[in-house]
Amino acid sequence: MSSTSFDFASLLPAGLPPAAARWNGRVKCDFTGGNNDADALPLDGLIAAATAVLRREGRTLSTYGLNSGPQGYRPLREFLASKLKAAAGIACTPDDILITSGSLQALDLVNATLLQRGDTVIIEEDCYQGTINRLTRLGVTVIGIPLDREGMRMDALSSALDELKRKGVRAKYIYTIPTVQNPTATILPVERRQEMLRLSAAHGVPIWEDDCYADLTWSGERPPAIYALSDHGGVIHIGSFSKSIAPALRVGFIVAPWEVMVRTLALKTDGGSGALEQMVLAEYCTANFSKHVPALRRALRAKLVTLTEALQQHFGPAAQFDDPEGGIFLWVTLPEGVDAAKLYQSALAAGVAINPGPEWSVNKSRARNRLRLCFASPSHEEINQGVATLAQLCRREFGLSG
Amino acid sequence: MSSTSFDFASLLPAGLPPAAARWNGRVKCDFTGGNNDADALPLDGLIAAATAVLRREGRTLSTYGLNSGPQGYRPLREFLASKLKAAAGIACTPDDILITSGSLQALDLVNATLLQRGDTVIIEEDCYQGTINRLTRLGVTVIGIPLDREGMRMDALSSALDELKRKGVRAKYIYTIPTVQNPTATILPVERRQEMLRLSAAHGVPIWEDDCYADLTWSGERPPAIYALSDHGGVIHIGSFSKSIAPALRVGFIVAPWEVMVRTLALKTDGGSGALEQMVLAEYCTANFSKHVPALRRALRAKLVTLTEALQQHFGPAAQFDDPEGGIFLWVTLPEGVDAAKLYQSALAAGVAINPGPEWSVNKSRARNRLRLCFASPSHEEINQGVATLAQLCRREFGLSG
Repeated sequence: MSSTSFDFASLLPAGLPPAAARWNGRVKCDFTGGNNDADALPLDGLIAAATAVLRREGRTLSTYGLNSGPQGYRPLREFLASKLKAAAGIACTPDDILITSGSLQALDLVNATLLQRGDTVIIEEDCYQGTINRLTRLGVTVIGIPLDREGMRMDALSSALDELKRKGVRAKYIYTIPTVQNPTATILPVERRQEMLRLSAAHGVPIWEDDCYADLTWSGERPPAIYALSDHGGVIHIGSFSKSIAPALRVGFIVAPWEVMVRTLALKTDGGSGALEQMVLAEYCTANFSKHVPALRRALRAKLVTLTEALQQHFGPAAQFDDPEGGIFLWVTLPEGVDAAKLYQSALAAGVAINPGPEWSVNKSRARNRLRLCFASPSHEEINQGVATLAQLCRREFGLSG
Repeated sequence: MSSTSFDFASLLPAGLPPAAARWNGRVKCDFTGGNNDADALPLDGLIAAATAVLRREGRTLSTYGLNSGPQGYRPLREFLASKLKAAAGIACTPDDILITSGSLQALDLVNATLLQRGDTVIIEEDCYQGTINRLTRLGVTVIGIPLDREGMRMDALSSALDELKRKGVRAKYIYTIPTVQNPTATILPVERRQEMLRLSAAHGVPIWEDDCYADLTWSGERPPAIYALSDHGGVIHIGSFSKSIAPALRVGFIVAPWEVMVRTLALKTDGGSGALEQMVLAEYCTANFSKHVPALRRALRAKLVTLTEALQQHFGPAAQFDDPEGGIFLWVTLPEGVDAAKLYQSALAAGVAINPGPEWSVNKSRARNRLRLCFASPSHEEINQGVATLAQLCRREFGLSG
């Protein structure tokens, strides 16, 4: 690491996030992040796809955007249009889709299209950390809607919208992860989706549907996307290949009405997203996606079983959770005395990484004794040992019995 | 393209860029953009590299950041450290390097690290359009320093810094493309680099060195990077694989002192750049970069010869230009009567795309009759026909003789 005698510090603007910490390698047992099951990666298929697509049209890599223009590699958008129709009921064409560098870039682009400092947005009370952090940095007022076992509560959403109306505030969007919600893993039933659309139309507030875990329901079934159920067109839909194929590829997408698309596209000034990933995914997924995903679901569900059994064995009734309907994470409530932020520190020192609840909720005090445990990446043995370590730490530090 | 009855327009914040135009495919003869020579793409080598690296370690794709952490795939950073040492004299380690999604993300990250609205920055008067556009959007005051045949003029830089000092303004950086400047294709001699460093130290203004074309000098030689010559450490260096391998891959990098790196890294919230591109580039370049680049240079130089001969044939002395020392573009001055922005429109209608000078300069009036012609991507025949078309249009519309 090069050091400098030059005074950069006095040049930094106000409001920068804190300096990043030095990365010291992965911990022994990592229950954090959207990492996936390495054994379930379709490696042979990806290699074959890479060879085939590069042999056929690799020379287009010499051109920004290949021969597909700024919305991304057309065969990938064609695959997505057909997959979104079959799986989520979305009727769209490749022209309605923008390929992004992961759904994180999709988050940034949609936020940049709609938000300015001082705006108000509505999200689920327990919510993806990356979304919460972005909204905090953007200086936006965030209203969290409580969830129950069927996802966002529509009575609470209705009250919040009424309350905003009384104050003369029009929220910029209702952001939801309706299908395998992060972190609660709930699935919003179709009736609630319809009610959300009714409220959206009544208040003139669009819905932003983040469907990045929607391929990973245990049953293989899912309700139609909110985008598909809309008749007013006030829905922006985003998704990702990170959870269904591999997170390191960094390929996500936005489906949006053309009026929004042209604004979002004007903000995507990155020269296009990585072409190799787009080409390989299109080639692989067109032939293999529908065979790969069920195998991945089985592997993930087996790990979830290992995790819940380990929690029952090592924590007993002290660890409370609802059985997820899909996904890669479990939202666990520990007894009131447990401080998840403190547990995070001591667990890290013991080689176990967890997501402390307060980072995944806008209701920090209610999430104080909660954890998000991601189970896709660690091995079955690491899951067992990691949970045993967490239980031991909870007994020692928070007087958990057992 | 889906349309919507929902009123999104009233939700858009002020200050968005204009809506993007619909993409209608590539034009017949494209003299714009950083597209490269498709025949010079090392396709067999890239396919072999993809297969080898994926066979060996492809399962790490299941993890964000592979096993390399947030600064990017370590073998690629190792290749870069060794290549930067050999080619540019830069002594750095992989820890000093951050892999980015193209050098465009590097531009955004460094700007976000240092700039806020109202700041002042110094750039070359004729400059990369993407840099100018970003600075305009950021609301920054841009001071353009004139160039001559040896790049940025140090007497003009010195005067500009003195003038700012009198006003009590400390510029946030001096941005320069010293090695094959865009669009003038000049190379800043080592004495000017040393003088720039002296001025940087005297005024407390860091230098931001954009070296994205530096691999493409005809001689294969280049002066040491400004980063390498610095003893105060006040230099940020960026580069790219877009010009040396393929632009659609979207892989660039930042070399910076650790104090800057930790701030920049905290702003890179995209879950990492595309892993497949990083892996394939590391695998390919470690073994083949030093063989590939000379072949690419020869192919590019041959196209430049075709372009300059076509200009001489069709424009005669009406087209003025200095012989570039490398790169993929030619900065052409036409007679005073020619309006490049108008020529752009009529050329596009005739299937020829050009970069009008005013978009590549902060001195719009001086650049009014200038063009940037990129020669790497069109074929030799397209170059000939494209130049003939341009000459014909200039005769018809601007009364060019000949």
